[in-house]
Amino acid sequence: MAKNLKIIPLGGLGEIGKNMTLLEYGRNQIIIDCGVMFPESDMYGIDLVLPQFDYAVENQKTLRGIVLTHGHQDHIGGLAFLLQRIQNVTLYGTALTLGMVERQLEEAGVRDHATLTLIDDKQTLNLGPFRISPFAVAHSIPAAVGLVVDTPVGAIVHTGDYKLDETPTGGRTTDLKRLRELTPNGVLAMLGDSTNADRPGRTPTEQLVADTLDRLFAEAEGSRIIIATFSSVLARLQEIMRLADKYGRKVALTGRSLQQNVELARDLGYLSIPKGLIVDIKKHVPDGNLVILSTGSQGEPRSALNRMAKGEHRQIQVHDGDTIIISGGTIPGNEEDVGRMLNNLFGRGANVIYGPLATVHVSGHGSREDMRIMLETVRPRFLIPVHGELRHLHLHGRMARENDLSAEDVFILHNGATWVTDGQKAWLEGSIPAEDVYVDGSLVGEINALVMRDRERLAQDGFVVAYVPLNKKRQLAGEPRIFSRGFLHMEASQELMDAATAKLKRELKRNGRNPHDAVRETLQNFFYHQTHSRPVILPNIVQV
Amino acid sequence: MAKNLKIIPLGGLGEIGKNMTLLEYGRNQIIIDCGVMFPESDMYGIDLVLPQFDYAVENQKTLRGIVLTHGHQDHIGGLAFLLQRIQNVTLYGTALTLGMVERQLEEAGVRDHATLTLIDDKQTLNLGPFRISPFAVAHSIPAAVGLVVDTPVGAIVHTGDYKLDETPTGGRTTDLKRLRELTPNGVLAMLGDSTNADRPGRTPTEQLVADTLDRLFAEAEGSRIIIATFSSVLARLQEIMRLADKYGRKVALTGRSLQQNVELARDLGYLSIPKGLIVDIKKHVPDGNLVILSTGSQGEPRSALNRMAKGEHRQIQVHDGDTIIISGGTIPGNEEDVGRMLNNLFGRGANVIYGPLATVHVSGHGSREDMRIMLETVRPRFLIPVHGELRHLHLHGRMARENDLSAEDVFILHNGATWVTDGQKAWLEGSIPAEDVYVDGSLVGEINALVMRDRERLAQDGFVVAYVPLNKKRQLAGEPRIFSRGFLHMEASQELMDAATAKLKRELKRNGRNPHDAVRETLQNFFYHQTHSRPVILPNIVQV
Repeated sequence: MAKNLKIIPLGGLGEIGKNMTLLEYGRNQIIIDCGVMFPESDMYGIDLVLPQFDYAVENQKTLRGIVLTHGHQDHIGGLAFLLQRIQNVTLYGTALTLGMVERQLEEAGVRDHATLTLIDDKQTLNLGPFRISPFAVAHSIPAAVGLVVDTPVGAIVHTGDYKLDETPTGGRTTDLKRLRELTPNGVLAMLGDSTNADRPGRTPTEQLVADTLDRLFAEAEGSRIIIATFSSVLARLQEIMRLADKYGRKVALTGRSLQQNVELARDLGYLSIPKGLIVDIKKHVPDGNLVILSTGSQGEPRSALNRMAKGEHRQIQVHDGDTIIISGGTIPGNEEDVGRMLNNLFGRGANVIYGPLATVHVSGHGSREDMRIMLETVRPRFLIPVHGELRHLHLHGRMARENDLSAEDVFILHNGATWVTDGQKAWLEGSIPAEDVYVDGSLVGEINALVMRDRERLAQDGFVVAYVPLNKKRQLAGEPRIFSRGFLHMEASQELMDAATAKLKRELKRNGRNPHDAVRETLQNFFYHQTHSRPVILPNIVQV
Repeated sequence: MAKNLKIIPLGGLGEIGKNMTLLEYGRNQIIIDCGVMFPESDMYGIDLVLPQFDYAVENQKTLRGIVLTHGHQDHIGGLAFLLQRIQNVTLYGTALTLGMVERQLEEAGVRDHATLTLIDDKQTLNLGPFRISPFAVAHSIPAAVGLVVDTPVGAIVHTGDYKLDETPTGGRTTDLKRLRELTPNGVLAMLGDSTNADRPGRTPTEQLVADTLDRLFAEAEGSRIIIATFSSVLARLQEIMRLADKYGRKVALTGRSLQQNVELARDLGYLSIPKGLIVDIKKHVPDGNLVILSTGSQGEPRSALNRMAKGEHRQIQVHDGDTIIISGGTIPGNEEDVGRMLNNLFGRGANVIYGPLATVHVSGHGSREDMRIMLETVRPRFLIPVHGELRHLHLHGRMARENDLSAEDVFILHNGATWVTDGQKAWLEGSIPAEDVYVDGSLVGEINALVMRDRERLAQDGFVVAYVPLNKKRQLAGEPRIFSRGFLHMEASQELMDAATAKLKRELKRNGRNPHDAVRETLQNFFYHQTHSRPVILPNIVQV
């Protein structure tokens, strides 16, 4: 009997991050990507957000493999966590992708839970009923692929993260020709990257950045150049090394992920570095002969560039005349951190160059016109916009409808939604759990919405603890004590705390209620009346 | 004896917000503007930030008046707080500016602490040794001015907030001709708006927005239009009302500040509204004949548009087919709030249009080329960049140096710096206190850096209170109790808390140290070891 194909996004829909998609046909599953998401600014204290793995873990017996499109954290960063719970799985990816995965699995001590199998963008791979053919895509990391997945009910295209750059400095263009050849009978459904659905036009070519950098190198003659960029934009790192060589400069690296990625990429042949170009950061090189490559384009507090900005970097003191190039776009949510870092760098006398003052960065994702070209190339029967917040998914869908898809052929899904097709029509069949899983320190999944709400309240107004000793008759058996943190500063608050204590004693004398509630309500009302603030009140009632 | 002129920025330097500048000549002072700043996202729980008023309050006897350039909150919002401390001062501003000020002073109950004196951009005002001549500037609020301040040592130009828009829809251009005529003997120093010093080119004209809105009105035929914008962009509100009238639509308003500003502007003649155009929000009007004007372009949690996005607006339910236009740029730091609101609106089926999908907003500040024109018009002897974060001030200064100023003639000041000139040369003379003053609820200045640091730690990892009863010999006299908020959720944490209690008992038995320190350190180490988190630990040691 003919079966249906199910596609279940476990992450990446309604958010930029933690991309993970499940394809299911009978008792056969494959997973495409397994990423993490960096927390939004109101996710207090959270280090990372993971997809909810329960469904994948429960069905691990039917899992034929995990196919990875590229080595960015939002596509591979969840593997080290998933493999704590699944002991025996094969991961498929290109050499660079698997190199990055392997390092992370080793660091997490789960390397032996997975078999790593190399694929490239010319071959085809059979996993149960799924025939998977990667095709090359241009993106901000080398060796990225999209996937054609042939299934018994039809061909599925997953674009991966892509841009359509005809002159990428790394030389890898998006292989629309192979994509067409792989889908001679049309495409049943496309899962398409929606990241830049609100950016008009086309995404500029990486060559523009290379041209700008060349000009900036020429202008910076005699002064030190510090460039901050993403550690995975290897094509740009390659270009910077070429320019350093051209202008007679050495290159020093600072930032752990940068050093690791450069080493890995060189070992795997993705970076070609002239002998002697790279020098140790501690080595003295005259300013005019040095480029420092650094992490920290997002103003991350502990990144190398931010430490320089704050004067806390051990080896590098930013000084008057330094040229500092921020060669990375600001990810939404990081604007204030980046702004503060820029201010500090200017404050140290540096000549700081950042977008839009010059084209020192371009996106790795296609813009609206690129997306339109992809839609017209693939001409899918159904579109499932992926990799985007809700607005991006809707804008992607709206664009498809302006072309030739009807409204019912565009599916705006949420994480966990089960999309089903028999090859002719498509429909939704309920959903599986797919809520955010928070990582905080070494705690995974132990922080819930209630804890987050408490943290938000604590951040707003701090807390007050009231120690109240009572005897068996529920009468005060000693002096209550009120103390606070994050509410008011101590000198300002002593008088207020004394008044609160007095109020509390009066209330406790005349009140026959539950002392816990009485203490909480009395203090809540008292403090709100006095300060218009609502600290968290924590009564500590002790029977003595 | 000839005296020196002092210029002291009390706010607005190294930040966008709370603009306030003091000019002092002998025993004569004037203040230009008195604004507030909205908190950055790491200013936990803070509602507003004020300039430090102490110096102005101490010297109020020498204060000849406060001159206001325009009615935005970052230029007038501090007055209601300053006038709690200064009882008798004259405020000078244009009709709209004073109208807005008056409303705020009345709401704060300090209206009778000030005399409000109208000025316009054709006249000249003498305040002690200062001769002040306002000139018209184009900005995103009507009736904005820059100031030429003639002093005994030379002419000072304060640009105010300006753009150079030759076709503003409000009709008010920046009056460079009057500025030139007012300064026949050259300009000693310019205090110049630096807001957009990192935006290349020129700021587009407001006419572009009007053209876009006209097109969107035409395309939205038959469906409801909801437009969110800043309540003070009256020229744009005027244009929207003109378009509504043209396309046969009524206009309903939602959002308190919008209603207040429209009323005020109509009363003062800044808005001309066809009779019967504005209808009550509760009145039923067919979708195709209605425009709803709303606040909330920044995604502010309690704004009208955000309440619509979350389905919590009493009168308006967003539905399929609504056209929603976000006609306001996103202020840095608000990206996540705006993004979330957009997602929710798309989720309700609306066709949402926002920048850069269409030109639905332009900045009220000039970009680099506009700033260059201003510099070349004024040709000051000294430049003091104002109204910007440090990077904007530096970029403004760098631009001036590329023109004709030497490095020593550009002064990058910080708030409180005392800049002094004798008309020939200029130098710095120490500084006065100018740190941020936080407003939290009804508390002004009672939240300090220590409290903020506590709030940050509480937001990250919550807190743990340890109640420890001791006898006189410092021995445990009962069971310790450990409880927490914002750390872990209760079910997950019981086991951990029990283990912590056991650990604490062991430590207290064998330890002869100060019990307070012992409890804190024991728990800090224990929890960090177990969770890699650092909750705030608060020992409550009670002698029983």
